Amino acid sequence: MLDFDKTGGLVPCIVQEEGTKDVLMLAYLNRESWEKSLETGYAHYYSRSRKSLWKKGETSGHLQEIREIRIDCDNDTVLFIVRQIGGSACHTGHKSCFYRTLQNKDVLVDNEE
Amino acid sequence: MLDFDKTGGLVPCIVQEEGTKDVLMLAYLNRESWEKSLETGYAHYYSRSRKSLWKKGETSGHLQEIREIRIDCDNDTVLFIVRQIGGSACHTGHKSCFYRTLQNKDVLVDNEE
Repeated sequence: MLDFDKTGGLVPCIVQEEGTKDVLMLAYLNRESWEKSLETGYAHYYSRSRKSLWKKGETSGHLQEIREIRIDCDNDTVLFIVRQIGGSACHTGHKSCFYRTLQNKDVLVDNEE
Repeated sequence: MLDFDKTGGLVPCIVQEEGTKDVLMLAYLNRESWEKSLETGYAHYYSRSRKSLWKKGETSGHLQEIREIRIDCDNDTVLFIVRQIGGSACHTGHKSCFYRTLQNKDVLVDNEE
């Protein structure tokens, strides 16, 4: 049902943490990673830099257990609501990839525990 | 600071409602719409179908007042946290574009007031 053709084979996937509702990251799905995600219940994406299937957390252990899947009105964006294993989604070690806020012309970095 | 070159001039922008933290939609920013958003405090996007600047809510009145701007670790995705004027972001009249949930093979539509 997803429209992979519209966007050259890739559909953006917003990843939101269950409970806190924090937005953790944005990743991309191709048909293979979408099917793997549905089949296994763990988030799989398409890595644009490595040009290959990427099981999120495969090396770091920071897997994402998919709790809910939502699809937008145009069938060209997905929302995964996940349990983030290991507490951080971002490769920098931050919980969320969106750890920087723009205020006026300044960039502020979140304080985290 | 956003990397517009990486993705052919467009950067995806996740839109989240202030307070409820509901994800409302995904839109795209080109440089012009990004600058207009910063300058005015109201969300402006790039319409891929109309190929033009799009002030969100210009015709419907459903403007988005930007309350917070976050940028991801790769500088290639933006998160707008907004006050959604008129209560719905989606052109279908639903509050969020993500009003459908996938459960097993079924698509469930949110009940809304």
